[in-house]
Amino acid sequence: MKKVILMPDSFKGTMSSIEVCDIMEGVIHKYYPNCKVKKIPVADGGEGTVDCFKEALGGEIISLEVKNPYFEPMNAQYLLIDDGKTAIIEMASCAGLPLVEERKNPMLTTTYGVGELIADAAKKGAKKIIIGLGGSSTNDAACGLLSAVGVEFYDENGEAFVPTGGTLKDIESISYEHIADELVGAEICCMCDIDNPPYGKNGAAHIFAAQKGADEETILLLDEGVKHFCDLLKEQHDIDVSELAGGGAAGAMGAGIYALLGAKMEMGIDVVLDTVRFKEIAQGADLVVSGEGRIDNQSLRGKVVIGIAKRAKKINVPLIAVVGDIGDDMDSAYDMGVTSIFSINRVAKPFSEVKHRSKSDLRLTFDAIINTIKTFE
Amino acid sequence: MKKVILMPDSFKGTMSSIEVCDIMEGVIHKYYPNCKVKKIPVADGGEGTVDCFKEALGGEIISLEVKNPYFEPMNAQYLLIDDGKTAIIEMASCAGLPLVEERKNPMLTTTYGVGELIADAAKKGAKKIIIGLGGSSTNDAACGLLSAVGVEFYDENGEAFVPTGGTLKDIESISYEHIADELVGAEICCMCDIDNPPYGKNGAAHIFAAQKGADEETILLLDEGVKHFCDLLKEQHDIDVSELAGGGAAGAMGAGIYALLGAKMEMGIDVVLDTVRFKEIAQGADLVVSGEGRIDNQSLRGKVVIGIAKRAKKINVPLIAVVGDIGDDMDSAYDMGVTSIFSINRVAKPFSEVKHRSKSDLRLTFDAIINTIKTFE
Repeated sequence: MKKVILMPDSFKGTMSSIEVCDIMEGVIHKYYPNCKVKKIPVADGGEGTVDCFKEALGGEIISLEVKNPYFEPMNAQYLLIDDGKTAIIEMASCAGLPLVEERKNPMLTTTYGVGELIADAAKKGAKKIIIGLGGSSTNDAACGLLSAVGVEFYDENGEAFVPTGGTLKDIESISYEHIADELVGAEICCMCDIDNPPYGKNGAAHIFAAQKGADEETILLLDEGVKHFCDLLKEQHDIDVSELAGGGAAGAMGAGIYALLGAKMEMGIDVVLDTVRFKEIAQGADLVVSGEGRIDNQSLRGKVVIGIAKRAKKINVPLIAVVGDIGDDMDSAYDMGVTSIFSINRVAKPFSEVKHRSKSDLRLTFDAIINTIKTFE
Repeated sequence: MKKVILMPDSFKGTMSSIEVCDIMEGVIHKYYPNCKVKKIPVADGGEGTVDCFKEALGGEIISLEVKNPYFEPMNAQYLLIDDGKTAIIEMASCAGLPLVEERKNPMLTTTYGVGELIADAAKKGAKKIIIGLGGSSTNDAACGLLSAVGVEFYDENGEAFVPTGGTLKDIESISYEHIADELVGAEICCMCDIDNPPYGKNGAAHIFAAQKGADEETILLLDEGVKHFCDLLKEQHDIDVSELAGGGAAGAMGAGIYALLGAKMEMGIDVVLDTVRFKEIAQGADLVVSGEGRIDNQSLRGKVVIGIAKRAKKINVPLIAVVGDIGDDMDSAYDMGVTSIFSINRVAKPFSEVKHRSKSDLRLTFDAIINTIKTFE
């Protein structure tokens, strides 16, 4: 083999996608010292997304002071690629759950800092802004973010304010006339692997707010707040996000930036494939390798391996998946372009007993695969 | 691929080696409809040994009435191959543990029927007699067997008798003057994968008699009986089997037939490889596939995969092993000729939860391997 593309997702709970890439690269170079290996660790939009794109594409890390989830100053980073024409931003970098530590409270937390990052990227000339929506501490429907880029929210007294999860209900009107000029022509694209609508029983508050610190009563208040905001968008601006798939992502941030910044909701893996120009780089490769903690047929939406396989099939490059667990009835995966799937499980033991050895299990399993290929190539 | 040799062991507790062969053959023909597949299910000398050789080599099944472990008449079978020049006999076929059901008692049981099978094969012209030593109900040091082929045992009154585990101690002298003529020139070869000596703390009684129904007191009596027999062989015939590796196999049957019939003790896998003429049939093959329930480095003696790999390496045919569990530190397996090892485990769950799905797990794992080979071949 002369050219191999490595595009694994992380193995949740055991290995980051960058670690998986490095292990695989080591094995390939053991058998094919001169093989060109392109490592594209896949991110899902959560923590580590910027690192993955940086590993795959290089680019420039931009650091600046923005507001944290409690409107306090903090330093956050984003990535500029494509000579500064594209920015990669993790919402979690300044609005993520780990940042609030013991102060989990989605009634109070804000996405304001994310808006500051977006504004900075746009000011620096980025025409495309990719935002990873994973890992939020907020439920503000992007209203903090939107405030930071010039959208104005008014209460019943006509006073402008920055709504948070707990004060969405106080919004009486919205103006986007002072939105930053640089943002008007920019394309905003959200990496979003969930289908949840902004509110209701499958909405942001009911499904995700508990892990952000909300009790049952708070969940109901948060849900009402998002519904109020969405109703207002419908009534005053004729924008209906009530059933937007992914509108519930990152504390209904999806709904807010879709409605007021025209953001698109895309599968994380599709954003990665487009951004790294998969077709260009994988054309003529001997093999694409992907992987993830578990592959199954229950939820093909958002699954990394299947997303890559579909594209690899189009350019006739075989795809081998190396995964933790393999679900039942994977036949459709093969139809979608997966050549073969191997599990890294080497002993019949429960996950709790084998997770500490996953790096070694991955290396040895991949070694068997690559040595087999080399033997028969 | 045009020619593949399948030589798996059984996966203990889940699949016979014949079942493993059939599953693998199905996968190979799915991807290579015209591939010549030679199935050689591997037997270890226990129950199923005759079936495995029959599957691999054909031959003629001979049925005859012999004595069961309690000297009662029963019907037993053995296999003649090589135009009748070689016989394959399972000692378990008429002296095996399942035959005694609720009457487990190694003080009383006999290998007499095994001797009748041997005598019959020799009379029919077999020049080589292969005996699988696994699964015995006896601890008679082959004295029953030897009686059936003409060896005579005398007690202190000069009376001839057929010793069993409980009466070995009564042997005063041994005569092999009336041993069957046909047996004199025959080569007898025992499939024996254990190292235990005939008696002592690692001997037949101490290690294996409990599972044959012996309590602690009985174990001591059995051990003393075998020691008495061995001492006699040394004193009266100058044959020392006291430390013979494998002399403790099948209730010290190994020691008895080694001493009085000149039988060789061999690893089961080596007997299989020689008997099927591995070098001849595997020469020029694209691949040899082996497998077993577990591969590890703790006990390489008697291990099927390693035994085959050493021979495959000599004729430069790659060997892939498909196994249940893979032990740690398998590096030396690769040195010994194993190209790659794949586990059939597809989920991180304990054996008790996955054993019912082992056939499907094997098929799907082997499918991934063969499709990968086909893709890169």
